[in-house]
Amino acid sequence: MTQFDKRNISMMMDFYEMTMANGYFESGGTNTKVAFDVFYRRNPDQGGFAIFAGLEQIIEYVENMHFDEDDINYFREQNIFDEGFLNYLKDFKFHGDIYAFPEGTIMYPNEPIMTVVADLIDAQLIETAILAQINHQSLIATKARRIVRAAEGRFVSDFGARRAHNMDAAIYGSRAAFIGGVHGTATVSAGKMFGIPVNGTMAHSWIMYFSNEFEAFKRYAEVYPESATLLVDTYDVIHSGIPNAIRVAKEICEPAGHRLKGIRIDSGDLAYLSKRVRKMLDDAGLNDCKIVVSNSLDEFTITSLLKQGAAIDSFGVGERLITAKSEPVFGAVYKIVAVEENGIFSPRIKVSENVEKITNPGLKDVYRIYDADGHAVADVIAMPNEKPDMAKPFRYIDPVKPWKQRSFTNCTAKKLLKLYVKDGKRTENLPTLNEIREYVKNQLANEVWEEEQRFENPHRHYLDMTPNYYEMKMNLLYETRSKTSN
Amino acid sequence: MTQFDKRNISMMMDFYEMTMANGYFESGGTNTKVAFDVFYRRNPDQGGFAIFAGLEQIIEYVENMHFDEDDINYFREQNIFDEGFLNYLKDFKFHGDIYAFPEGTIMYPNEPIMTVVADLIDAQLIETAILAQINHQSLIATKARRIVRAAEGRFVSDFGARRAHNMDAAIYGSRAAFIGGVHGTATVSAGKMFGIPVNGTMAHSWIMYFSNEFEAFKRYAEVYPESATLLVDTYDVIHSGIPNAIRVAKEICEPAGHRLKGIRIDSGDLAYLSKRVRKMLDDAGLNDCKIVVSNSLDEFTITSLLKQGAAIDSFGVGERLITAKSEPVFGAVYKIVAVEENGIFSPRIKVSENVEKITNPGLKDVYRIYDADGHAVADVIAMPNEKPDMAKPFRYIDPVKPWKQRSFTNCTAKKLLKLYVKDGKRTENLPTLNEIREYVKNQLANEVWEEEQRFENPHRHYLDMTPNYYEMKMNLLYETRSKTSN
Repeated sequence: MTQFDKRNISMMMDFYEMTMANGYFESGGTNTKVAFDVFYRRNPDQGGFAIFAGLEQIIEYVENMHFDEDDINYFREQNIFDEGFLNYLKDFKFHGDIYAFPEGTIMYPNEPIMTVVADLIDAQLIETAILAQINHQSLIATKARRIVRAAEGRFVSDFGARRAHNMDAAIYGSRAAFIGGVHGTATVSAGKMFGIPVNGTMAHSWIMYFSNEFEAFKRYAEVYPESATLLVDTYDVIHSGIPNAIRVAKEICEPAGHRLKGIRIDSGDLAYLSKRVRKMLDDAGLNDCKIVVSNSLDEFTITSLLKQGAAIDSFGVGERLITAKSEPVFGAVYKIVAVEENGIFSPRIKVSENVEKITNPGLKDVYRIYDADGHAVADVIAMPNEKPDMAKPFRYIDPVKPWKQRSFTNCTAKKLLKLYVKDGKRTENLPTLNEIREYVKNQLANEVWEEEQRFENPHRHYLDMTPNYYEMKMNLLYETRSKTSN
Repeated sequence: MTQFDKRNISMMMDFYEMTMANGYFESGGTNTKVAFDVFYRRNPDQGGFAIFAGLEQIIEYVENMHFDEDDINYFREQNIFDEGFLNYLKDFKFHGDIYAFPEGTIMYPNEPIMTVVADLIDAQLIETAILAQINHQSLIATKARRIVRAAEGRFVSDFGARRAHNMDAAIYGSRAAFIGGVHGTATVSAGKMFGIPVNGTMAHSWIMYFSNEFEAFKRYAEVYPESATLLVDTYDVIHSGIPNAIRVAKEICEPAGHRLKGIRIDSGDLAYLSKRVRKMLDDAGLNDCKIVVSNSLDEFTITSLLKQGAAIDSFGVGERLITAKSEPVFGAVYKIVAVEENGIFSPRIKVSENVEKITNPGLKDVYRIYDADGHAVADVIAMPNEKPDMAKPFRYIDPVKPWKQRSFTNCTAKKLLKLYVKDGKRTENLPTLNEIREYVKNQLANEVWEEEQRFENPHRHYLDMTPNYYEMKMNLLYETRSKTSN
């Protein structure tokens, strides 16, 4: 057992969750029900959307949350916690409800992607782990999708483990990248845990171990006559790597009844080299030999390579995918939106000078509105149980431009928040990872406007409100402002 | 047990490590000894140095490396591995040697910070996990040091867990940040696992749960009369938060014999607000009440705040520390440098058109050279067992400018690579985390030139070579070039 195995994820929380929980306990708030929303404010890389990921790990986390005796001793040693509270932690289990978008749902800023309705302490203690999981996996899934889009149908594999921010980042990052559309991973544990197809070629060390490059290629092809992808840039791609690879294709693979599967270029000018290499391979009759490239790739370098006519079949994408290098922070937040008072959930709002930073208060539902062609034209926040009647024109308010009086006509509405955890237990079987990945693909192919998917200045998805919800929010804002400016 | 608990870190490797290992096995290379060096090529953020971190976790990983029955079944299902090799994996344990810089050593590009001397398969299989650990922890330790430097002695705490790239990134990132000099963390599991002081204040949810801000502050101060730090920006810092905090200091803390410990500002113009708040607190006789700020801080915003005369006692630093946002990739690599042939380690070199990308071949030692004042003037790569005699002028070669013929006089030399793992087992007790942190602090206070520590255009630390080592490298380069250009 290493420290990695011994850890207890229940302790992965900010210390203030525990000081607040103790404070609530001492204030008699243990049985008050509250609601928290998870939402984010800005798409990474100025994109038009993000992909919701990490839900399965969150459900597993809340189902298993508990504090061991030595966790409680650790808190006792801090000398600020009430003994009654520490005793309460012994039997603590999360027994609240969690509503969320299905994993893989295309999501947009400022809408609740998850709502936790639970006793005050239950809801508070799970904040940090929920945010870390959503922030990490949504970040990588969204980045992966950008890279896959740039690759225009070519094979993309996650090669990032060695540059990931430690073990989980490699493993759950690989899961998220697969949700975002990459085709495989080099990370064995992710392959084993999640059934993601694993792949890999060889390192420079293989070439350098043998006395020369031809000998190294030959040995590899003898071991893997069907699946060898030879790394050709250790000495000189054009003058050594490719001639040796062609020789191995002819002398080892073909006599054994196989074709050389591929070559990989990991340095140099990938546009120039890939074109020259393609011609050399074709001239040698190896038209089916795949060209794999790697080396600090991302959506920008891939777009540029393909624009230059690079002859590439497959991309190995490492550090810039697994760290989301261009923007490594996903900013989902967890905000209290309602507190139960006398059996009714009373909305709470966080005010701000900046209109976009004002939270959306209260319990709510979110609907995605589709036009007759199945395109998602907007998302709408509604009061709970305010079921939109789409048979007639459906009036809505754009909170950024509330003077516009508009309606949806000829549209359908789909409720996005589903109940996933009831009284601390999952309510249904979760989709497989392949199902989540297909769900992402289908939304992007059929529902999400191409104008929202482009990299440059994408269309901003509308987040509207029903008139009832908008009125409730405005009234609450007015009341809160009057109360605090006294 | 969650998936997080069940994982086996031994499987956190790139798939090609395993295809190569199987290839070596089938080629009879099981008992050949090789040497791999770990080094990196560029300091993050154009800094003058980096901090070596993650060694303890690497040692624990190699000591515990093993493959379970279901790991082996997973490999078998890939249908490309030799049954003899799968059988070999059953009893596999790492039984090589690892030399490394002591954890916390200030390090520079292109020098070996770790050398693995082991049987070929042993050395190959540990590549990915070693790199992920060094790349993550060294990245965060180095970033943390920049932030602590900018804070000029003020308290800095890691608030990053919710924006970390999953659980390990929060936990081991917190460890690395502590090595780099932060004073505490909000992450409970890091506090518990590593003894890092934990701290925390309150979230906006605490304020919003209660019917008004004064009531919320009052309840918190009643529970924590000595240690309350009140979050004052939920409604309006100047008109609501601070007046309410002062009232609580007077009405709750002081009658109980305590002083209000602090207030926290998490939004708005921190320079302006902190100065106004300081004056309001001082005018109310609360000169000892600390001002804590947070909100997307890093070394650049902290430098700017302090230049503006902001009145800040303590910084809570989150997303930009825990993701190293300005440069989230640390590029350490693992390169084969020698292969044992007939009992002698024969050096290997990777050539490149770019002189800085040519590897440093062969077994080697690294010495840090100190002048009479104890400043580290250069690092020197030497042949193994080539012990520098510092009693007389010590000739060295700068490989970037080999025509300069220089010597060190009146200097001392310290060998940097130490044997940490022998035959797969640690050779000595490792330092505590506090000792590692003190070691970093002492090097920066006494050994590393201030000119290497500044952010703008820092002095580039010299990496020199002994004449013997330089000659060996040049000869090998010549031989390799002749061999591959045939």
